[in-house]
Amino acid sequence: MNLHHKPDAAPFLLREDADGIATLTLNRSPSRNPLSEGMLAALSEAFATIAGDRSVRVVILAADGPVFSAGHDLKEMSAHRADSDRGRAYFKDVLGRCSAMMQQITALPQPVIAAVEGTATAAGCQLVATCDLAVAGDGARFCTPGVHIGLFCSTPMVALSRNLSAKHAMEMLLLGEMVPADEAMRMGLVNRVVPAGEAPGEARRLAAVIASKSPATVKIGKRAFYEQREMSLAAAYDHASAVMVENMLARDAEEGIGAFMEKRQPVWRGE
Amino acid sequence: MNLHHKPDAAPFLLREDADGIATLTLNRSPSRNPLSEGMLAALSEAFATIAGDRSVRVVILAADGPVFSAGHDLKEMSAHRADSDRGRAYFKDVLGRCSAMMQQITALPQPVIAAVEGTATAAGCQLVATCDLAVAGDGARFCTPGVHIGLFCSTPMVALSRNLSAKHAMEMLLLGEMVPADEAMRMGLVNRVVPAGEAPGEARRLAAVIASKSPATVKIGKRAFYEQREMSLAAAYDHASAVMVENMLARDAEEGIGAFMEKRQPVWRGE
Amino acid sequence: MNLHHKPDAAPFLLREDADGIATLTLNRSPSRNPLSEGMLAALSEAFATIAGDRSVRVVILAADGPVFSAGHDLKEMSAHRADSDRGRAYFKDVLGRCSAMMQQITALPQPVIAAVEGTATAAGCQLVATCDLAVAGDGARFCTPGVHIGLFCSTPMVALSRNLSAKHAMEMLLLGEMVPADEAMRMGLVNRVVPAGEAPGEARRLAAVIASKSPATVKIGKRAFYEQREMSLAAAYDHASAVMVENMLARDAEEGIGAFMEKRQPVWRGE
Repeated sequence: MNLHHKPDAAPFLLREDADGIATLTLNRSPSRNPLSEGMLAALSEAFATIAGDRSVRVVILAADGPVFSAGHDLKEMSAHRADSDRGRAYFKDVLGRCSAMMQQITALPQPVIAAVEGTATAAGCQLVATCDLAVAGDGARFCTPGVHIGLFCSTPMVALSRNLSAKHAMEMLLLGEMVPADEAMRMGLVNRVVPAGEAPGEARRLAAVIASKSPATVKIGKRAFYEQREMSLAAAYDHASAVMVENMLARDAEEGIGAFMEKRQPVWRGE
Repeated sequence: MNLHHKPDAAPFLLREDADGIATLTLNRSPSRNPLSEGMLAALSEAFATIAGDRSVRVVILAADGPVFSAGHDLKEMSAHRADSDRGRAYFKDVLGRCSAMMQQITALPQPVIAAVEGTATAAGCQLVATCDLAVAGDGARFCTPGVHIGLFCSTPMVALSRNLSAKHAMEMLLLGEMVPADEAMRMGLVNRVVPAGEAPGEARRLAAVIASKSPATVKIGKRAFYEQREMSLAAAYDHASAVMVENMLARDAEEGIGAFMEKRQPVWRGE
Repeated sequence: MNLHHKPDAAPFLLREDADGIATLTLNRSPSRNPLSEGMLAALSEAFATIAGDRSVRVVILAADGPVFSAGHDLKEMSAHRADSDRGRAYFKDVLGRCSAMMQQITALPQPVIAAVEGTATAAGCQLVATCDLAVAGDGARFCTPGVHIGLFCSTPMVALSRNLSAKHAMEMLLLGEMVPADEAMRMGLVNRVVPAGEAPGEARRLAAVIASKSPATVKIGKRAFYEQREMSLAAAYDHASAVMVENMLARDAEEGIGAFMEKRQPVWRGE
């Protein structure tokens, strides 16, 4: 029910598949690719579809235009201040859906790589922090500016504070200043900075490396990563050891280790 | 009952307020600004007062003299070895009060910025790690030297290990060597390094940025930051989403978002 | 029962002690120092012995040859695919023993410093991440390449993700690319990079600093570090404060603080 954007016939999200890589492109450049209801629904649906699509081995998240994403759609949200509950139910719903979409990325079997050109702000910055890997063009900038408008970036902080050191996260959240790409790399928000315009290409290069691996193995590893990091050291080792025993018994590990010892290329079956 | 320092009439802590910024200055330069009983009490009282003072929007923590703070007052502590319990009750009390004071900083509604010139060692280094942000003059140095005197910096490690990566924290704790300002920045212990003598000025610049924001919003965000970082990802998102719904319904968010959409300056009411 | 390596008469691990520093050297250079059954047993036994050896104050973990350690012994593991359970019981056993050995390092009273020349891959990279400190020669390289052979480095990720930021850890795990020493330092995997060949010397220098401290104090501090980092902030402060009270009452703290105030060298008794 995205009445707000109904007149705009173009899809919120473009999807292009090639060589096991699905590239999702935020497609609301004129309004700065906001995470509007329509965009959230499109992203959520795309991730749900991809989760079950064995042909997709890696996802690249990119954006059209000079703004990667400006975060929540403030116009859409503000309209609900006229609701009888001043918008409470709506805000709860839309923030819940946004948080759920972010966690879909974490739960997705396939790795997700953000390819950032331009600015990623508020929930747009959270989106980058949430992706498993991130590549930035050197004109890219990152910002959690909610503090400027009286709405602290509290949900973006969840992703930020799990990627950056405490003082770096606090600096972004309290000052709301633009962080250039190279500083974002120093802080751990992005993995690599490339010349402006080359982020999608570099993301494809990384994606191609990952796409050449066993998707079953990548899935096992990504899931274990996010599971074990919330555990104590002892529990994490118990869990990761159990995961690795199952991985060892899977067909692709037998093939991969055999190929390695026989000095030949492995043939993955994705099992 | 700070008999030890009674003869010294000067206050332990100076407070100067301007433009919503309270600057607290450790004022025991001759004895290297130790976190003595008197200093702990002065800091604790100051933070308790400021917590309820709506005129204060940001706190700067600075120090007089070439030493920011040398940590616990070893002379004062050692005197209690003559107690019938060899000091156990006293040590427990003073360490408990120090840990409580550190946690007052974390719980304070207003952000606290450390402005460090000179050396910050042991609990003095902990104080810097505990502040939400930290700025250092490039002559500043940081050290957890307890290991040299048989008293491992175990309480400072709590703050250090929540700011630095494991190996960096361990290096500081096990070696007890002086870390220069630029390395402290690389490790995440301080946000910025400025020319020697300019840390207070840079701290005021950052403080002025934060003081221009809605204090209600900053309070909501700071509290949520420390709460959510101890939660699992799913619980953190639930909590941060709930926080953001309340924030959205607060008066300053309505004003701030309205002002943003109308391209005018917001007028905060602090609600 | 290390039948596989029986013909090789040389010990898996060399131990050399000097000045309170035990240097353990992985001694299977021709087969790239794998963490085979024999090597795991040798390491585990060495750490168990050292844990109770008051003459050892610091441990250096080094390796003979151009490969620090290539991780698990894939040949040895693959041989067990012929077992009636396809190796399940064996894999569980060997991974359990490897994880237990890693946790022995964390639990060891003495700090362990990795001195890395050459490449440290998979569980060999985990070994470096697990040590309290790590020094690398500038030809050293680090890699978690399991993804190439269908066996994700899930147990290494436990140590990696407790040392590196999320995106850096994910990059190593998903791409499996070689990380040069200086990038490993930037990521927090190693503390220092020195000219090639000088890692053992630099490790000895750091070890000598630590060996000059009270071993009782170092033991208290190392244990508290790993305990408190898994706790909430409040619980961590309660724990660290209690640890510090006991430390304060120990003989070496009394001596160390006394010596400091009297400006003389302390004489440690290790109590």
